[in-house]
Amino acid sequence: MNDLHEMSSRARRSFTVLSVSSAKARNHALLHMAEVLKSREEEIFAANRADLDLAEKEGLSSPLLHRLKFGSEKMTQVISGLRSLADLPDPIGQTTLATEITEGLTLYRVICPIGVVGVIFESRPDALIQIASLCIKSGNAVLLKGGREALHTNQALISAVRQSLSETGLPEDSAQLLETREDVAAMLKEDELIDLIIPRGSNAFVRYIMDNSRIPVLGHSDGICHVYIDKDADADMAVRVAVDSKTQNVSVCNAMETLLVHAGVLKDIMPKIAAALEEKNVEIRGDREAASVICCKPAEEKDWSEEYLDYILSVRTVHSLQEAIEHINHYGSHHTDCIVTENSETAAAFLNAVDSAGVYWNVSTRFADGFVYGFGAEVGIATGKLHARGPMGLEGLTTYKYKLIGKGHTLAEMKSGERQYTHRSLPLTGGCPV
Amino acid sequence: MNDLHEMSSRARRSFTVLSVSSAKARNHALLHMAEVLKSREEEIFAANRADLDLAEKEGLSSPLLHRLKFGSEKMTQVISGLRSLADLPDPIGQTTLATEITEGLTLYRVICPIGVVGVIFESRPDALIQIASLCIKSGNAVLLKGGREALHTNQALISAVRQSLSETGLPEDSAQLLETREDVAAMLKEDELIDLIIPRGSNAFVRYIMDNSRIPVLGHSDGICHVYIDKDADADMAVRVAVDSKTQNVSVCNAMETLLVHAGVLKDIMPKIAAALEEKNVEIRGDREAASVICCKPAEEKDWSEEYLDYILSVRTVHSLQEAIEHINHYGSHHTDCIVTENSETAAAFLNAVDSAGVYWNVSTRFADGFVYGFGAEVGIATGKLHARGPMGLEGLTTYKYKLIGKGHTLAEMKSGERQYTHRSLPLTGGCPV
Repeated sequence: MNDLHEMSSRARRSFTVLSVSSAKARNHALLHMAEVLKSREEEIFAANRADLDLAEKEGLSSPLLHRLKFGSEKMTQVISGLRSLADLPDPIGQTTLATEITEGLTLYRVICPIGVVGVIFESRPDALIQIASLCIKSGNAVLLKGGREALHTNQALISAVRQSLSETGLPEDSAQLLETREDVAAMLKEDELIDLIIPRGSNAFVRYIMDNSRIPVLGHSDGICHVYIDKDADADMAVRVAVDSKTQNVSVCNAMETLLVHAGVLKDIMPKIAAALEEKNVEIRGDREAASVICCKPAEEKDWSEEYLDYILSVRTVHSLQEAIEHINHYGSHHTDCIVTENSETAAAFLNAVDSAGVYWNVSTRFADGFVYGFGAEVGIATGKLHARGPMGLEGLTTYKYKLIGKGHTLAEMKSGERQYTHRSLPLTGGCPV
Repeated sequence: MNDLHEMSSRARRSFTVLSVSSAKARNHALLHMAEVLKSREEEIFAANRADLDLAEKEGLSSPLLHRLKFGSEKMTQVISGLRSLADLPDPIGQTTLATEITEGLTLYRVICPIGVVGVIFESRPDALIQIASLCIKSGNAVLLKGGREALHTNQALISAVRQSLSETGLPEDSAQLLETREDVAAMLKEDELIDLIIPRGSNAFVRYIMDNSRIPVLGHSDGICHVYIDKDADADMAVRVAVDSKTQNVSVCNAMETLLVHAGVLKDIMPKIAAALEEKNVEIRGDREAASVICCKPAEEKDWSEEYLDYILSVRTVHSLQEAIEHINHYGSHHTDCIVTENSETAAAFLNAVDSAGVYWNVSTRFADGFVYGFGAEVGIATGKLHARGPMGLEGLTTYKYKLIGKGHTLAEMKSGERQYTHRSLPLTGGCPV
């Protein structure tokens, strides 16, 4: 077991260097990382083969084996991702507010990195490079914990990351690998040294993290996404959106789990959707009204709260927009929910009242993704509402500080009326002078 | 004891109405609140006299009695605060990002309220109106818990708040009062219904809240603020800033608790500061080097971590800027820290490396305040780093959602190459159409 207090302290010290490093230095480290990974690819592939052999012996399912694989195709993607990331603008240092408080006293709000971030991710080893590189680009130190079955690959990858940091003059302890569950439990205690935990996993896992740490958590948890077919929906569009949302990839958090259909179009549209889903072998669990127009299993109360991640869909009939909104806000996971309608007033009411990170009008829920949104990579999809919401890229890894610059100003002078507040907004173009 | 599940559910339902109400409706409620408070002032003052009588019998100290008092002066301030708040721009509905994802598919990021917020505040009853009005202005429902000793005043005030909501057509359960510690404990369990807790109080209190809830917490806790007198400091400015930071009000979180002095100016400047502080009856606890140039008590290790909130100051000698930064990042509470120097390079290094919400150059730490910063009122001063940092006004009470508007777009079309990502930034001026 690793000494997490020691690792967190080293991460903290690394952050103090990384946080004041130049964008050029951080981008240089990313570009060098691409080269180091390439030059060490045989070693990385060998480590991955060891993981794959072990996983096969343990009987890992074929989709999981596929996710675990890190071969030349993944290497090419990872390297191209690093180069794109180096090209993105520096997320650090922008001035987002400038106010003259009184004569000679100016307040600036300036974007800065958060500090030390702990990220717990799934079996996909390329996630290690994506997460580490997003953290380095944004000036944060990171403690990484990947899936147990990817341990050898992750060890090879973290070694390459650390080599590229130290060879470009940045502290190698800016990125460190945790190896066991006990390491994770110990990390959760380091609330004096770690600023943020990003757990990617099930609701139960995110809850475990929240229950066992004082460190703020940006959870990436279940997606119980809905598509609501409104009474003013176009039938063809309803079928397209429902089928893509449910079947384009059933095992991901932005796939639809429950379809809500307005009673007014149930008879017209539901059989068409059911027929299209049947072709994809989707099992439908419907309420009584749905069962009167299509052939399906009966839905139970618990179906409304279940993330199937499978070829299963629950269907519920609603009698108003309000009923659809209430169902989604009550049973949903505030991830991504869609309305299909031709009526823009109804769409506006839905988009404003549904309390989710993504609210879609006539679009498949599968679009909820950092790359799709144009953020480059993502460190997770936040299902909470604070700090960052939805797909979380570089911006979610930043915070700000207030820089106040004066000439010996005292509050006593303000209170006595010797000086007056001006509270004058200044142009942001010049930024903060220091 | 109140039924907190029932109260939280009512707050949630109120939020669904409040979150889609117009800025006009919310501002109207604030202006009407000013009138209702005025018309019910006799009742409110009587309730406050009852609290004051009880508090006097219980032997509350005179500064605490002063904070508890809600008379015509406070009423005037509160009413004027409500009118200023109604005048501020609506914090809700702005579009902060607009991107064409592919032809006919547009992503908008739109500011929206958070939901249900729980705020626990100290004895000052005017805080109830400030917090409730900030929440209503930003479209959030709020559960309020004030100090035990202000209970009668708070009951009278919340009744006026609720009257003004219902008389202007907004749900009165948008603002509800908790009355006991048991109510607070019960509120912490309602993580399905409450989105954010803002506890104002000691570190120990904020930790208690964090340890007993899964609800995200924006803590407003201790301030261990520092002033660092650099080797290039102007002596007069050093004295001004140190004296104001320590003595303008000793019992507040943004008062200085530790003074760091560069060894190079210790002999020159420290005796001047000590003389000025002596006039204000400040007890100095210095390290060995400080004790060689001024008369003081010896500082112990525990002094560096203590928030005195009193006429006491610890003084430590440092031998470099780096040592000052390390001391502050290690012992400080990341609230507000100041450097006094004439050297702009040194100032820049300090402001960038000190990991605090406020980093000041030649300014008293007492300026860390939402009103001073020009935010109108504040709901608290966040000492964490996520979501909001430092004085937290309306902006801290908002989040955003992504609205994605298409024409039946499917991810399958994107994956097949039938459609291409354009990721084109659009002007924000038009906002989101729905």
